[in-house]
Amino acid sequence: MTYCVGLLLNDGLVMLADSRTNAGVDYISTYSKLTVWEQPGERMISLMTAGNLSLSQSIVTMLNEGLPNGDGESVTMSSVHSMTEAARLVGRAIREVRRLDAPALKESGIDFEVSFVLGGQIADRHLRLFLFYSAGNFIEAGPDSPYFQIGELKYGKPILDRVVTVETSLNEAAKCAMISMDSTIRSNISVGPPLDLLIYRRDSLKVDARMTLAADDPYYKMISEGWSGGLREAFDKVPDPDWV
Amino acid sequence: MTYCVGLLLNDGLVMLADSRTNAGVDYISTYSKLTVWEQPGERMISLMTAGNLSLSQSIVTMLNEGLPNGDGESVTMSSVHSMTEAARLVGRAIREVRRLDAPALKESGIDFEVSFVLGGQIADRHLRLFLFYSAGNFIEAGPDSPYFQIGELKYGKPILDRVVTVETSLNEAAKCAMISMDSTIRSNISVGPPLDLLIYRRDSLKVDARMTLAADDPYYKMISEGWSGGLREAFDKVPDPDWV
Repeated sequence: MTYCVGLLLNDGLVMLADSRTNAGVDYISTYSKLTVWEQPGERMISLMTAGNLSLSQSIVTMLNEGLPNGDGESVTMSSVHSMTEAARLVGRAIREVRRLDAPALKESGIDFEVSFVLGGQIADRHLRLFLFYSAGNFIEAGPDSPYFQIGELKYGKPILDRVVTVETSLNEAAKCAMISMDSTIRSNISVGPPLDLLIYRRDSLKVDARMTLAADDPYYKMISEGWSGGLREAFDKVPDPDWV
Repeated sequence: MTYCVGLLLNDGLVMLADSRTNAGVDYISTYSKLTVWEQPGERMISLMTAGNLSLSQSIVTMLNEGLPNGDGESVTMSSVHSMTEAARLVGRAIREVRRLDAPALKESGIDFEVSFVLGGQIADRHLRLFLFYSAGNFIEAGPDSPYFQIGELKYGKPILDRVVTVETSLNEAAKCAMISMDSTIRSNISVGPPLDLLIYRRDSLKVDARMTLAADDPYYKMISEGWSGGLREAFDKVPDPDWV
């Protein structure tokens, strides 16, 4: 399983992904699910992936190596001119890998299942955030719905719904994403650290912070331990009923 | 959809169920999902149901009307002698309704899906809590896992995991169940009030509190509004990172 969350804020973009991959409970491994295409001063594009690892790796490879643009040339995530074009390219790559792999998977009784979150900005264009489905279709985040989640999303949704608006600062949004991730990790053992975090300031056109947080990272540990205590305190503050 | 949670504590039992039922998003109605069999001083048994309403209603009807015991007599939830016998009876009822209805449902492409939580105490025997699956098999709660959820369970699980132990008091457990329910209602529109709540003190052999909480119930409103504020405060207390 996987949990990834991407937040589109007035100040910029926060993307957080776990890195646990499993083929059954008896085969657990670690793969980064966050890919970045950066040309400082020109573009910062980031993609997070969930679903079948063989499919998401094939799709990312295709985005690196390029798809034909019809004029005998190749388009890659490093050459697209806008985030709309980037989103179309991701959709095309999903459909191309579906065409190549879905029939054989189906013969083995495996569904073609992937979901992606794509965020980024190119030159003087808008910063944008997209969510992709297995058919290669996609939706875009807006001010009323400023975040997208993929993978095991339910455990970590309540805190996002209660805290995040487009006006949330980048550091606060990263903190909220970490708490959302921690709730998920506690409830689903197939989601786990290290965590890949990326923070992008709107218009900076470069990665402003990127880190890999292991289970013993001091801030992650503080979140993980501190949040339980904070929740417990909040719980104690709500008056008890006197039903019995 | 449905959300029900049952908690087995040193002090007794708490059971909370929503009451929203839907057949598609364009057909929403209200049905109680909590049934009680009570003979004060002798037994208190309560069942919460999730899944296909036609199936769970048929099963509850069968538990009221009885299943043959092999000696030409009927066993009902009012005549079983122990919670083990009660659990076996629920399992048999599930299998009997599956035998009657599953083939026709399958022809319509509908899976046989139900899940139940059964809790209660009979005479001087132990208070017990069981979770039932669609095949009529069941598991029992113990001190390490003192609660069961059915239906839309993920949104409301993190708060239970962080607060509830067997030592939690009945009023506190009811408060936690209400917060867990509120998180679920906020995230899934197919779960909704009025809420059916039952509280049972161990060894009392009667229902100690039972109420139906509508959306405008003062305590439910206080939980719903107060918890968001408490969470926000707890969130603000966790130090912000300084990643950007």
